[in-house]
Amino acid sequence: MSLLERINTPHDLRQLDLETLPDLAEELRRFLLSGVSQTGGHLASSLGAVELTIALHYAFDTPKDQLVWDVGHQCYPHKVLTGRRDRFHTLRTYGGISGFLKREESEYDVFNAGHASTSISAALGIATGRDLKGEGFRVVAIIGDGSFTGGLAMEGLNQAGYLGKRLMIILNANEMSISPNVGAMHGYLNRIIQGQPYRRLKDEVEQLLRSIPRVGEGMVKWAKQAEHMAKQLLVPGNLFEELGFKYVGPINGHSIPQLVQTFREFRDYTHPVLVHVVTRKGQGWKPAEQDPVFWHGASPFSVSTGEVKKSSGPPSYTKVFAETLTELAKQDPRIVAITAAMVEGTGLDIFLRAHRDRLFDVGICEEHAVTFAGGLATRGMRPVVAIYSSFIQRAFDQVFHDVCLMRLPVVFALDRGGLVGADGPTHHGVFDLSFLRCLPGLVVMAPKDENELRNMLTTAVACDRPVALRYPRANGYGVKMDGPPRLLPLGKAEILRSGRDGAIWAIGTMATETLQAAERLAAENGPDLTVVNARFVKPLDTELLSAHLRPGARIMTIEENALDGGFGSAVMEAATRLGAREVTFERLGVPDEYQPHGSQEILRARLDLDVEGICRRARAFFPQTLAGPRPVAKRDSA
Amino acid sequence: MSLLERINTPHDLRQLDLETLPDLAEELRRFLLSGVSQTGGHLASSLGAVELTIALHYAFDTPKDQLVWDVGHQCYPHKVLTGRRDRFHTLRTYGGISGFLKREESEYDVFNAGHASTSISAALGIATGRDLKGEGFRVVAIIGDGSFTGGLAMEGLNQAGYLGKRLMIILNANEMSISPNVGAMHGYLNRIIQGQPYRRLKDEVEQLLRSIPRVGEGMVKWAKQAEHMAKQLLVPGNLFEELGFKYVGPINGHSIPQLVQTFREFRDYTHPVLVHVVTRKGQGWKPAEQDPVFWHGASPFSVSTGEVKKSSGPPSYTKVFAETLTELAKQDPRIVAITAAMVEGTGLDIFLRAHRDRLFDVGICEEHAVTFAGGLATRGMRPVVAIYSSFIQRAFDQVFHDVCLMRLPVVFALDRGGLVGADGPTHHGVFDLSFLRCLPGLVVMAPKDENELRNMLTTAVACDRPVALRYPRANGYGVKMDGPPRLLPLGKAEILRSGRDGAIWAIGTMATETLQAAERLAAENGPDLTVVNARFVKPLDTELLSAHLRPGARIMTIEENALDGGFGSAVMEAATRLGAREVTFERLGVPDEYQPHGSQEILRARLDLDVEGICRRARAFFPQTLAGPRPVAKRDSA
Repeated sequence: MSLLERINTPHDLRQLDLETLPDLAEELRRFLLSGVSQTGGHLASSLGAVELTIALHYAFDTPKDQLVWDVGHQCYPHKVLTGRRDRFHTLRTYGGISGFLKREESEYDVFNAGHASTSISAALGIATGRDLKGEGFRVVAIIGDGSFTGGLAMEGLNQAGYLGKRLMIILNANEMSISPNVGAMHGYLNRIIQGQPYRRLKDEVEQLLRSIPRVGEGMVKWAKQAEHMAKQLLVPGNLFEELGFKYVGPINGHSIPQLVQTFREFRDYTHPVLVHVVTRKGQGWKPAEQDPVFWHGASPFSVSTGEVKKSSGPPSYTKVFAETLTELAKQDPRIVAITAAMVEGTGLDIFLRAHRDRLFDVGICEEHAVTFAGGLATRGMRPVVAIYSSFIQRAFDQVFHDVCLMRLPVVFALDRGGLVGADGPTHHGVFDLSFLRCLPGLVVMAPKDENELRNMLTTAVACDRPVALRYPRANGYGVKMDGPPRLLPLGKAEILRSGRDGAIWAIGTMATETLQAAERLAAENGPDLTVVNARFVKPLDTELLSAHLRPGARIMTIEENALDGGFGSAVMEAATRLGAREVTFERLGVPDEYQPHGSQEILRARLDLDVEGICRRARAFFPQTLAGPRPVAKRDSA
Repeated sequence: MSLLERINTPHDLRQLDLETLPDLAEELRRFLLSGVSQTGGHLASSLGAVELTIALHYAFDTPKDQLVWDVGHQCYPHKVLTGRRDRFHTLRTYGGISGFLKREESEYDVFNAGHASTSISAALGIATGRDLKGEGFRVVAIIGDGSFTGGLAMEGLNQAGYLGKRLMIILNANEMSISPNVGAMHGYLNRIIQGQPYRRLKDEVEQLLRSIPRVGEGMVKWAKQAEHMAKQLLVPGNLFEELGFKYVGPINGHSIPQLVQTFREFRDYTHPVLVHVVTRKGQGWKPAEQDPVFWHGASPFSVSTGEVKKSSGPPSYTKVFAETLTELAKQDPRIVAITAAMVEGTGLDIFLRAHRDRLFDVGICEEHAVTFAGGLATRGMRPVVAIYSSFIQRAFDQVFHDVCLMRLPVVFALDRGGLVGADGPTHHGVFDLSFLRCLPGLVVMAPKDENELRNMLTTAVACDRPVALRYPRANGYGVKMDGPPRLLPLGKAEILRSGRDGAIWAIGTMATETLQAAERLAAENGPDLTVVNARFVKPLDTELLSAHLRPGARIMTIEENALDGGFGSAVMEAATRLGAREVTFERLGVPDEYQPHGSQEILRARLDLDVEGICRRARAFFPQTLAGPRPVAKRDSA
């Protein structure tokens, strides 16, 4: 029986000798590699946190002591050690364990995560609750240096240092967000790690001492004093000390004995402690050590060769977005691209190669990304903020206050709109149409395919207004691409098919699925339906809608977004404004509950958001005219 | 002609001798006092920024050089000096000048403000745009120490220090957010101002020097070197230097010569500079100096006595909220209150007096406030986050990710829901029902009057789920209060009146207005209407709604919220889900444009959101049964 197999809970771990833990780390690392090579997942961060995780559960009394992990990219070792080893092969699959922290899954997951920079605030809340109730457990927040510069983390740090509660923050510095880290705080941490402050001290003190006139023995004692004072003043971490923390570090994050010793020494410290741990992302597996960005979120791969099963097929929306923006920026010097630590995830590595000086990676700072874009726009630039749909939630007020209210021409390119699949509920981009479309002046659109994405992006940059352009995490349909991208008329929908039994209004790629469903229904002598690709959630094409609102009409709407306040609601609102009488609506979309993780195909099928489901729902909703000569289906791509 | 009267633009200001500027400051201060005593407004911050504003426009070439003000509470002197002196008496009134920065209003207002912590990011965007276009102007962000600890400001600082662009940040430290400042950063700034680091240095260096063995003259030179080195290492502002800024300060913010000299010395510095200016909020007017919290946002008052025109009438919703929470917390030790620098604005000063250890003022950190609450809730506490509706926009993702997704029992007490009046578009709380109701699991409610607010708050704390409870900036109706507050059935509406010509569903205080309108209509033999106080936007009372959905029915909805995705949409969505056929809807609410500033009465009247307007719209929408014996209007308060 291997060491790892003997560990069903951290209690088992704590029975082991400290000396055997490096062997356990080796086993755990192999186990993770083997598992993630099958399922895919966040590999590099988890490999880097193996020793740290073992040391934490060894030195702390979990689950009584509370470990609050940030984001969750590094949580796989924690999952394996806390009773989920046997289910690890189900990672990120439908019905399997989540790729992130989840309270419903384990008592060891004390606070859900998935988005960045939350752990310090959550841990401080937990510690405050503990003290109010007079409880005695320990609280530890574990946060990467990428998450650390997010504004929320700094807010948490600011109050934690102020309240002075017993709380340990472990700053796990691996020099990476997902892209390599940027920002002044990163520079500061790096100087600590590279020992520059201390070296500067040493140099200066030595120089000073060398310059001392030769004197008697009293001088020696004095020189020691001087050196001590200077050291006191110049130890690394002064910035944290100024903010109320005891700073400890930097510690080698791959040395279990050092980690355990440090945790034991400071775990009962009565004030906030910040332990600065240095790890290497991807540690212990050459391919991931050499390219931690590529191996941040991995597809299934071969452990021996590091070869990834190539996915073939049409280009992704991400790639089409990035290539189009790169192309547009060649003609238009006003275009700048902004990302919050997602250079590769948003495809902007393509843009970077062509326009290095016009790409701004602001780090994990979505709020700043948006307000920074607002500032750029006031100077005549055309900023494109490329960001995942679920992360723009973090900058909702900035979209409102620093862009829309001034009607500044900023484009929000919202990748991962709709159901994202394996990342699950924290990452599904299914609320954006609802929370964005209430903002006056914002154009909200979504393309039916990758060719339309190009045209929409071109339209967005040209239209001189704030725009949110949302597209899915997916490959395109492999449609024929227009030559140069062209401008779409603002607020105009497209009729994909005309039928006599009713109309379906769909947004985004649901329009393409709906067209397929309508063709199938027609072929099987089901209802003969008009299919509208709405293109714009806002402004909605009320002229076309008006034509569909005859009394007795039936209109179905389809969207990969929350039904509460989404696209279908916009259609009903417009119908009411247009004075619709006796029109019956049916809306397909994401119902009012959090969607689980799993493949996009499974998740869509559950909600009738695929061709099959659309057919079923349409058959039930639309009355069918009796058989007879059917008009030829008409396409109108205007 | 006074000095002030000669200044129509900053160009005129720059013609004056430096020596006359203190006189100008005195005139400007008297002018502000006189104006704000009539209109009300943000007095104390503006009084504190008089010298700073004069010095800025004197030392910088505005409007070519760009001044980016944070929040705008301190912008009145800027408005007076930049061509708006003659309109200053219209401040915050309908059709008059705004109380905040507004690009539409003046070329000197380069970036809108109203919410906190945006200036560094916006200024960095402006500076970046300048450099991309090869322009040469200067950029200055002016931010208070309250705004400075907001996460967005720290995010901006982090990138500004990293990019190293020519940019000046003026940190205006007056020790206040709106409430007195809190947090570790505040402690740090205070230690600088009080000279502690420098004093510590002096003491230690002197001690060191005293300890030097008496030696020859070489020692004197050496000692100077040592002192210089130690000073270098220990000057205040090291924290900012570590983050890539040249630190300058602290500077007396009421000394125009010092300010002008400093700005001139550093205005063309090639790297980011942080100038730390110390001012006193309320400077130059005794009452405001002595109580800057009270005089932060002032009602009209007497300049000579500082007496404020007492507003009489029923208690405000704010007060009823705070008193009820204080009362509930006496029985329930799980209740804790959280505010983001708004102890007084949210009424929590009442709570503070009774439960000092259970109030947490986190500073201007809305994101942290919410995640901190989430952490507390995991430990069995019942956190109530009291926050203005427009500011919860800043924590939308935290409401989603750190509360709702885990279904944690956190109550969001959203004050200033609906149209807030004089503060205008940045502060209107008219989007909350739209962006919050798409989140699964969140209960969203709004009371019809102050008595219902008590019952709703009691229900919210008891119901063991995340709850958003929204109420207006207003005094109550003076209704009779229930004795002890009571629990309301979750998701159940209340019928205020039954009529035979149709139904109006209203939410919040609009329900009370609608009842009055319905009574008036009935009295004048207009339509006889049912009035429903919906109470809950989510979950909506579908049972009652179902009963109203007979074919041919007409239903009107009324809300003080955006029509896009708001309460009325929720009613239509539910009707569709319930299979409604041939029901006609009409929705009253806030249309799809930003609402201006002005009195709530005027703003509501413009949108038909008062008794008069509701009557007019109802007469037009509802068919009227012919005269005949009317059933007695029925009240059902169940």
